[in-house]
Amino acid sequence: MTSRMMTTVGKKLMSRTTAVTYPNFVRVVEVGPRDGLQNEKTFVSTTNKVKLIHLLSETGLSAIETTSFVSPKWVPQMADNREVLKGISRKSGVLYPILTPNLKGFDSAVGAGANEVAIFGAASEAFSHKNINCSIKESFERFRPVCEKADGLGIRVRGYVSCVLGCPYQGSVEPSTVADVALKMLEMGCYEVSLGDTIGIGNPGSTLAMLQAVKQVVPVEDLAVHFHDTYGQALANILVALQEGISVVDSSVAGLGGCPYANGASGNVATEDVLYMLHGLGIKTGVDLSKVIAAGEFITRVLGRATHSKVAVALASKKTSCCLKNWAL
Amino acid sequence: MTSRMMTTVGKKLMSRTTAVTYPNFVRVVEVGPRDGLQNEKTFVSTTNKVKLIHLLSETGLSAIETTSFVSPKWVPQMADNREVLKGISRKSGVLYPILTPNLKGFDSAVGAGANEVAIFGAASEAFSHKNINCSIKESFERFRPVCEKADGLGIRVRGYVSCVLGCPYQGSVEPSTVADVALKMLEMGCYEVSLGDTIGIGNPGSTLAMLQAVKQVVPVEDLAVHFHDTYGQALANILVALQEGISVVDSSVAGLGGCPYANGASGNVATEDVLYMLHGLGIKTGVDLSKVIAAGEFITRVLGRATHSKVAVALASKKTSCCLKNWAL
Repeated sequence: MTSRMMTTVGKKLMSRTTAVTYPNFVRVVEVGPRDGLQNEKTFVSTTNKVKLIHLLSETGLSAIETTSFVSPKWVPQMADNREVLKGISRKSGVLYPILTPNLKGFDSAVGAGANEVAIFGAASEAFSHKNINCSIKESFERFRPVCEKADGLGIRVRGYVSCVLGCPYQGSVEPSTVADVALKMLEMGCYEVSLGDTIGIGNPGSTLAMLQAVKQVVPVEDLAVHFHDTYGQALANILVALQEGISVVDSSVAGLGGCPYANGASGNVATEDVLYMLHGLGIKTGVDLSKVIAAGEFITRVLGRATHSKVAVALASKKTSCCLKNWAL
Repeated sequence: MTSRMMTTVGKKLMSRTTAVTYPNFVRVVEVGPRDGLQNEKTFVSTTNKVKLIHLLSETGLSAIETTSFVSPKWVPQMADNREVLKGISRKSGVLYPILTPNLKGFDSAVGAGANEVAIFGAASEAFSHKNINCSIKESFERFRPVCEKADGLGIRVRGYVSCVLGCPYQGSVEPSTVADVALKMLEMGCYEVSLGDTIGIGNPGSTLAMLQAVKQVVPVEDLAVHFHDTYGQALANILVALQEGISVVDSSVAGLGGCPYANGASGNVATEDVLYMLHGLGIKTGVDLSKVIAAGEFITRVLGRATHSKVAVALASKKTSCCLKNWAL
């Protein structure tokens, strides 16, 4: 018996149990066709966008962000918004939200058949100015008529808050500012606010601090999270969000999208990897992972690039009988 | 005021606070030069291995797995083990453990100057048979003389348990088997047991179940975790392990290594990404992330491949003044 043996046996076992709980069900909001494709270098044809949306509609996902009504000068990838909306067959029970930053965009989207829209604000003054040419306060003046008109038409509005964990222009962002912007969006009429780590710089520590600040002023059931995987932290951040009671997660099939602020870096967290984690935790999503992987295979073939989903790569290449190794001397 | 406003204001805020705690300090065990390079297709010269170990020695890391004494027939990448051990200048306060699967390997390693060794067992019968040609029980008969001789020489022995969350040959692995193997290794004299998700298939749910089973029979302070990022879950799994009280984490600079069981899939979790998460949580490591990134840049240049660290990619390409976008119509 070595000295170690006695030490081990003599030690008091620490069977500390954490009080962590997880939601029973998580709603996954697929943002690949809009947030994803908008940031891909390769343009995708309307036909292939419609096919992607149809494939995603068959997975069990209940929300698929479809396109945006934004200046084609700045976001040429979404210039075919009307054609995409016209082309898709809507599956019952699936929402197809459209990003509409102002009343003009809203009117065009509704004219093209949108029945849910999203508005896009920022928790960073610098980002708001550079991205939508106005202060945070002014951005609310643009959103207000959208929310009022949507309310009158019975159209739901989802709110995005970008830069919740950092800004490419001003650096740090105060959690209290995120809380203020989120509350304002809910008060204006959004049914849900998605908190976006636009540059993927957050970590579980900053995520926790931000969420706890937001939860002080906003009911947790009105919150969603939207993580980018630029620093590889997205799933860990989502885990923290789930532990904080959040049950709506945005993600992008095949990790569609990139990061315009860091060349070559990853963008949106991949839906496949999120589903793998959620299902592993015993959380129901109603989504068929294998069908999402198939949709990802389709769109990455169209784009001519590899998937950013590690789950998709691992399952595609899984081989259980190769590479036998013998490490004995 | 929309109907939404009233709903939000009327709702009771849920400011549920979880009882999660994290360790104050985490010891990061760098496994790149051994576990990493062993699974890289490109062979690295002895000179460059020694240079990598020297670069890592200056980062603040306190343990760098250096090489293995294993059959060069099966692991040709480590055939220069003696030369590597002879070539390195040992920095005070840094451990340089060597993998030694049996007494022959142990004697060779000690003869070449090893002052800490590691043994490698499995929680899967099928893996044990395929990997080291014996049952789990028989593997302990090989380890016993190593542990006894090491104890006599005052050399510390670290234990690895592989396949703790799944096996490429038999599929599922019982948490109770992991617990049994870990306890046996500690009883045999190992000062610490590192629980390895060899095929990176675990998720936070299976990680939690496994760790809770192991903690029933082994003190948590004797445990380390060793995750592969094959399914992208490594950081989320590490987060769960930290929440369960584990404070030793294995990782590999630049994510060196691959997965021999899934072509093209990721291997070891990248040290840079682990450090980014730990530091973000306010956990001290004593390790300088920027120096680890520099070591990763060196070795990936040698290998002629991109880093697998998302943190390294993001920081290298961080640009805060490019790609201004205007989403207004």
